Amino acid sequence: MSTTSSAAINRDAPVAIHAQISEGIRSRIASGEWPAHYRLKSEPELAHDLGVSRGTLRRALTTLIQEGLLRQVRGRGTFVTSTTIEPAIAQKLSTLSEDFANQGIVTTTTVLECSLIDPPRPIAALLDVPAGGSVLKLVRLRSTDRGPVALLFNYVRTDLAPGIEGVDFTTASLFGTLEGAYGLKIDAARRTFSAQAAEADVAAQLNLETGSPVQYLQQVTYLADDRPVEYSDVWIHSGRLQVTSLLSRR
Amino acid sequence: MSTTSSAAINRDAPVAIHAQISEGIRSRIASGEWPAHYRLKSEPELAHDLGVSRGTLRRALTTLIQEGLLRQVRGRGTFVTSTTIEPAIAQKLSTLSEDFANQGIVTTTTVLECSLIDPPRPIAALLDVPAGGSVLKLVRLRSTDRGPVALLFNYVRTDLAPGIEGVDFTTASLFGTLEGAYGLKIDAARRTFSAQAAEADVAAQLNLETGSPVQYLQQVTYLADDRPVEYSDVWIHSGRLQVTSLLSRR
Repeated sequence: MSTTSSAAINRDAPVAIHAQISEGIRSRIASGEWPAHYRLKSEPELAHDLGVSRGTLRRALTTLIQEGLLRQVRGRGTFVTSTTIEPAIAQKLSTLSEDFANQGIVTTTTVLECSLIDPPRPIAALLDVPAGGSVLKLVRLRSTDRGPVALLFNYVRTDLAPGIEGVDFTTASLFGTLEGAYGLKIDAARRTFSAQAAEADVAAQLNLETGSPVQYLQQVTYLADDRPVEYSDVWIHSGRLQVTSLLSRR
Repeated sequence: MSTTSSAAINRDAPVAIHAQISEGIRSRIASGEWPAHYRLKSEPELAHDLGVSRGTLRRALTTLIQEGLLRQVRGRGTFVTSTTIEPAIAQKLSTLSEDFANQGIVTTTTVLECSLIDPPRPIAALLDVPAGGSVLKLVRLRSTDRGPVALLFNYVRTDLAPGIEGVDFTTASLFGTLEGAYGLKIDAARRTFSAQAAEADVAAQLNLETGSPVQYLQQVTYLADDRPVEYSDVWIHSGRLQVTSLLSRR
């Protein structure tokens, strides 16, 4: 039994055939029958199953691509789009802002704190700075048109980036500033992912209830000379953003 | 102010100096002053700070390495060990069992279900099998000596692996079976990570309260010819296992 032939086309209906096809696909996506990342059959197969011309099928698919429900990947086929943002930050040392830019996702940044602090001892240890020193504490909230998606706490060594507390991080990116303005060679990072219950302050910023599950990411970033430059705690709204890795076996 | 010189060595005490040093480091790790992944100063620096010979320091470090509190990485230094298991499954297409084996972690597997089922429609769609077909449903619980760490639901195409329901997955690994016994070329996977609230059955298996945050991993695995071969839902106990990526910027 084919899952596609069940979409009956009514050639006598006042609705155009391509519109009937796109509506059929829309309802399959809405019902979860075709989940995110489902790859549609090839166009010739699909056109054959539906008993329509490839031109009619293409017109239906184009509508759905324009609506953002499907996307075409060159050489791989047509896929159902995910409804969550899926940055590859577990797979590459890119930042959320870089991933958003690559995917064409518009985000806004609210800077909640940007000040010099005496770091807590565990953070001082991981950054290899003496207790009683001074590091930049940068707290930012990133939002899309669906609302807040991530709350970021970054701690940055100011001996490696003097004056960084004066940068306007509403528009500037942190890695961009470290690499561009300070000429630092960011080389590697250790990122750890776990599920946590949102504490009250995190929950409030992400529009979640206290205790809701949040994706927690902890990171230490190293320069090419192996010195740690940045430590971060990031809380992610899993309903709006899912960390995704496309992995190769060999 | 050095964080290490504060550990006073008492040369008149009945406790050997190397034992005083290892005890001092042990209490710094216990207090969180030296967190997981903290890199200790170099041995000459540390010996100088403590006012002891390198031989005495090495003896103290060796004790802590044997206890599993510290680990040495060739060319990088000595680090505080993490108390959670940290598989790199977001970074590489390795499996939990392969990562455990690489890290020398002993796990046991309990097979909770291994049967042929008519797959739910979203899973049938992602596996590209017709509705009404038959796939292997494999449910396993992986535990270490600290208790259950992951609950795995795998759905495998049986047209690509006929008879796989007869394999004893208490000892055999799934990828090992697909690649070894069936000669399939596993090539790539998409893995998505999010935080979820544990439902009652997942919570019970992982020894958590219902609604506790759990790390959820969803995966579709593809063969070299681009056919999907396996879909999985995995729930991870974040208190016992943290997904870790060591990432390179370039």
